[in-house]
Amino acid sequence: MQRVYFDNAATTPISDAVSEAMISVLKNQYGNPSSIHAEGRAVRALLEGARKTVAQAIGAGTADIFFTSGGTESNNMALKCAVRDLDVRRIISSPLEHHCGLHSIESLVHFQDIEIVWLPVDALGRVSMEALESALQNQNGKKTLVSLMHANNEIGTMINLKTVSELCIQYGALFHADTVQTMGHFPIDVQNIKINFLSGAAHKFHGPKGVGFIYINPDSPIKPLIDGGAQERNMRGGTENVYGIVGLAKALERAVAEMEHRSTHIRKLRAYMRQALVHNFPDIQFNGDLDGDSLYTVLSASFPPGPKNELLLLSLDIAGVSASGGSACSSGAEKGSHVLEAIGADPERKSIRFSFSHYNTEEEVDFAVKALVQILTPKTQHVPA
Amino acid sequence: MQRVYFDNAATTPISDAVSEAMISVLKNQYGNPSSIHAEGRAVRALLEGARKTVAQAIGAGTADIFFTSGGTESNNMALKCAVRDLDVRRIISSPLEHHCGLHSIESLVHFQDIEIVWLPVDALGRVSMEALESALQNQNGKKTLVSLMHANNEIGTMINLKTVSELCIQYGALFHADTVQTMGHFPIDVQNIKINFLSGAAHKFHGPKGVGFIYINPDSPIKPLIDGGAQERNMRGGTENVYGIVGLAKALERAVAEMEHRSTHIRKLRAYMRQALVHNFPDIQFNGDLDGDSLYTVLSASFPPGPKNELLLLSLDIAGVSASGGSACSSGAEKGSHVLEAIGADPERKSIRFSFSHYNTEEEVDFAVKALVQILTPKTQHVPA
Repeated sequence: MQRVYFDNAATTPISDAVSEAMISVLKNQYGNPSSIHAEGRAVRALLEGARKTVAQAIGAGTADIFFTSGGTESNNMALKCAVRDLDVRRIISSPLEHHCGLHSIESLVHFQDIEIVWLPVDALGRVSMEALESALQNQNGKKTLVSLMHANNEIGTMINLKTVSELCIQYGALFHADTVQTMGHFPIDVQNIKINFLSGAAHKFHGPKGVGFIYINPDSPIKPLIDGGAQERNMRGGTENVYGIVGLAKALERAVAEMEHRSTHIRKLRAYMRQALVHNFPDIQFNGDLDGDSLYTVLSASFPPGPKNELLLLSLDIAGVSASGGSACSSGAEKGSHVLEAIGADPERKSIRFSFSHYNTEEEVDFAVKALVQILTPKTQHVPA
Repeated sequence: MQRVYFDNAATTPISDAVSEAMISVLKNQYGNPSSIHAEGRAVRALLEGARKTVAQAIGAGTADIFFTSGGTESNNMALKCAVRDLDVRRIISSPLEHHCGLHSIESLVHFQDIEIVWLPVDALGRVSMEALESALQNQNGKKTLVSLMHANNEIGTMINLKTVSELCIQYGALFHADTVQTMGHFPIDVQNIKINFLSGAAHKFHGPKGVGFIYINPDSPIKPLIDGGAQERNMRGGTENVYGIVGLAKALERAVAEMEHRSTHIRKLRAYMRQALVHNFPDIQFNGDLDGDSLYTVLSASFPPGPKNELLLLSLDIAGVSASGGSACSSGAEKGSHVLEAIGADPERKSIRFSFSHYNTEEEVDFAVKALVQILTPKTQHVPA
């Protein structure tokens, strides 16, 4: 049976080039990169080559890239270590952040005397820059960290990194950008836009799960979240996930090289699906800032109330279409989406996130829309023959 | 050129069965285990199957196993979260612990009012059980965590898990065992021996790097070290390293099934190398409790002072033999071994850790000993022909 995978914001298939690079290491390179013998040095060379590739992809110094177990660890590290090591006593963030940001902040506030400012968002999921500036103007003498997602993972609404960066510079605040959804999909250059911490996760750009990185601006040095040996220049203990790191670097290298080509294809595909959905479902709406700054891989459709809504994702799955009700990270919890709630989405409507990669095709969109029509359109009475 | 890999305590080669299992997932299974569609459910099944395998290997409940990015993260989590969540105000440990234990403890003591008791160790690296009992008798009303390595990674000296466990039960203390070096090499059964937290790292038993697990006894529930989504039943945020977890489970399953066979082979090999070294180097000594409770994979040899000592590891490497001066995790730092210092080893002597796996052979021992003889034996004057 044909299957259509429209859940690329949850995770992407590993590309062949990436799996080949990983398999070569899995089979042939087993040294510990901290060992000084030949087997160790060979693996260390792979590791440092990967670091250079990642650094080049975002205009960073090689020494400013640290590999982690993923975007969640990177975001935890930025938030928790900035508070611990840089005397941050105030965090400005938004209610639309990923759970790894929200729950890290909750944990910080629970155990320490940290002031938290939640910025208002509008119905399109846009974070108020006026409120950000106002909050930055009133720091009460407390060192402040601004922590915002570059693009929301559920509805795709983006912040302008340059705008936020300039405000942070102007008011002397630190800036953590959760770039997990945009890394490899949008150009990011920390030489042009000053960011103190940013995060990446390989599995969002056709690399492996369980590996990511954090960029740490040398102006804001922090200490390890995970203490241990001298790995990652004493910044992250634990023997490195070498296969994963090699895969991450290969995937990011390809994503950057093919960014224009891939994004053109995916933008076209999203517009095509949007049009097809509007054509077939006149009452459809879309969550997020679709005609503004928006993550082009995500199309969050909102269907009017109806009897098929409750099982819509399951019905799509049975029909061969994989999509999502929100972020995968929350779906295990089977709770409503905090993002949709924060933008005031009508809870009677049903939101489905379709998210694309360059592997997807217009034929797959046709297939998915047809499935939706079959599921949602009231059937005419069967007349017995 | 032949190479002999005697650094299996640093990391082990991935077995073919493990890499095949991982490659199959890398190539064919890309869903996010938190997604509810078919691709996600297939990967979730792999993840939960792996959890069951690991639980069975140590007699634990499936719900008590949590996957992490490795032994270092697991040990960080046990120490830091026990202090944070279980009101631990006193840690009893030893100066021989791995850096991930020592540095986690240092970080805790630096930021919080935690009392730390360092147990004395003897010249063989044995932790004093009398001192442990004495420290447990005087808890000063502070909740106490005992944190000890099951086997030291540099010299192999072991604690008796049952003895420590019974003392902890008797005096109401929590027990964290760093079992990174022994997991898959010694039988561990948490049904027979009560341990609150224990740790494992796949790459120490022929699985992949960058993945591990923590066992958490349900009597001592802690909260996440890494906050995020609902993964690992809300205990560890971040999309799971599925390939790594599948590899870990396969590797542990094989290690447990073949434990007797592998350990018999390795014990014989270690005795064979010990005998050959004594035969060739009458002044040789061995670090650790070689004739007592000792990690059979490790042979830490101590060579008398000599002009070739400083470059001995490098010379061995050039001759095709990979060994280690201490733990790989510290070698990047190029510092002396804190373990050898703590047992009062003579700093004029040169310690080399040879560590074995079941892939090693007596021929490889012969090769390594011959290389050592060639490096260390004073050469007779060359007479020009």
